[in-house]
Amino acid sequence: MEKIVVFGLGLIGGSMALSLKQKNRCFIGVDPNKAHAQKALELGIIDEIGSLKEAVDAQIIIIAVPVNVAPELTLKILDLIDEQALVFDVGSVKTSICEAVKHHPKRFNFVAAHPIAGTEFSGPTAAFNGLFRGKKNIICEPNQTAQVILQSALSIFKELEMSTSFMEAKAHDKHIAYVSHLSHISSFMLGKTVLEIEKDEASIFTMAGSGFASTVRLSKSSPETWTPIFIQNKNNILKSLDEYIKNLNQFRELLYQHNTEAIYQAMKDTHKLKKILEDIK
Amino acid sequence: MEKIVVFGLGLIGGSMALSLKQKNRCFIGVDPNKAHAQKALELGIIDEIGSLKEAVDAQIIIIAVPVNVAPELTLKILDLIDEQALVFDVGSVKTSICEAVKHHPKRFNFVAAHPIAGTEFSGPTAAFNGLFRGKKNIICEPNQTAQVILQSALSIFKELEMSTSFMEAKAHDKHIAYVSHLSHISSFMLGKTVLEIEKDEASIFTMAGSGFASTVRLSKSSPETWTPIFIQNKNNILKSLDEYIKNLNQFRELLYQHNTEAIYQAMKDTHKLKKILEDIK
Repeated sequence: MEKIVVFGLGLIGGSMALSLKQKNRCFIGVDPNKAHAQKALELGIIDEIGSLKEAVDAQIIIIAVPVNVAPELTLKILDLIDEQALVFDVGSVKTSICEAVKHHPKRFNFVAAHPIAGTEFSGPTAAFNGLFRGKKNIICEPNQTAQVILQSALSIFKELEMSTSFMEAKAHDKHIAYVSHLSHISSFMLGKTVLEIEKDEASIFTMAGSGFASTVRLSKSSPETWTPIFIQNKNNILKSLDEYIKNLNQFRELLYQHNTEAIYQAMKDTHKLKKILEDIK
Repeated sequence: MEKIVVFGLGLIGGSMALSLKQKNRCFIGVDPNKAHAQKALELGIIDEIGSLKEAVDAQIIIIAVPVNVAPELTLKILDLIDEQALVFDVGSVKTSICEAVKHHPKRFNFVAAHPIAGTEFSGPTAAFNGLFRGKKNIICEPNQTAQVILQSALSIFKELEMSTSFMEAKAHDKHIAYVSHLSHISSFMLGKTVLEIEKDEASIFTMAGSGFASTVRLSKSSPETWTPIFIQNKNNILKSLDEYIKNLNQFRELLYQHNTEAIYQAMKDTHKLKKILEDIK
């Protein structure tokens, strides 16, 4: 019987357990939120509720907690584990966790992963088998992991039907600021702006259609998960945000000047995205 | 046989023809883009290709052209039509067209409508039966339309399975700037920002997931349709854009100050949207 301990029983940790369920595996769930742990047990996501010490004799340990909690927890787990164990995290920021574990004697047991999958929902009730299917996974600093442990992680991600690629942690954090973190902020601020105006214009949402719904979808994401991501990837996000605000100001100026041609051209130019988006699952 | 003339054979005009098709109706399509007209004929969206003069003996005339073209075209059509004819437009900005037709002797034959439905795709190939099903429709200045004509329009929108509400044109344009036009700009500028950074960071899109795809979906919208909308609703959009940029700058400042608590609270506050979005189709 393979023992898998999942720290954090939210959307990601819960979906991972559900997607990896097999007869010969036992899933122990650990979550400081007792209601979440209980719900995960009820929903059959985990077989038992446990605590930190379960890591001692586990074969696989999954760290799916908010990124501000993950580095310290990972160090504690690495202190406890067996020499053959695979420990991996799934956080959306990778520099800080890689930095934290850098000098740990069990660094070779650790894989810094980022399975790029999610929905705007959170908690164990949002978890489902199949969340990761066909999606991308990034592993950072693979050379810092022992070959046999890395292979074991790769086979887990293969089981999840993900395609894995390798990347330096700094490059990961820089790029993900643009294609994920910035999207969350733009969406979240759009929601905020419309909610503010709604105070004076009560009927405004009766006019909202599917375009608005799709653009503000990410603003429903969990503040518990996302606030620490923003804080931890602050410098990269500030840079991407500055470029986004600069582009919005430029658009504003073109509109103010009634520059139809330049607006048209700018829209036309972003149509390159069409082809790119076709490939995104 | 009821004769319906559709001006503009793109996503909206085409979907309207497809959704209203019945044995006893004949659809004539008019589009300055000959390839679009030909495609619409091939796809069975229309029964014949025609020209402006077809309006003379039509029972229903649908104006689904870009908003910069619609006011002048509507005036020409009103000059030609039979006294019983229903003419309606479907544009996303309503003040300018209402202003244009205000003093026309056939103003009572005209309905200023905005069926709030669409996808990011355009042209006759994007059209489909069912686009409007379950969506909202706004009719502006209903008192300026003859009762019998208005009833005829309402029955058309009922046939499309839309729920119609009434609104002043100015209020429509102000509200729609927030819940539709601003979403398009935020999405479009997000796409632009990520495309620009991609020039230096070639692999960036390999990391994009479903969150990014959903947030930039609207940036694929047609520049031919959207540039005139932005220009025509300029003042309302500038106002909404200023508030959006102000919120982004505020968020930037909170992040810069490492103000975890305020960011968390701001995200939490926008969660009111969750309930609201559940009701949007």
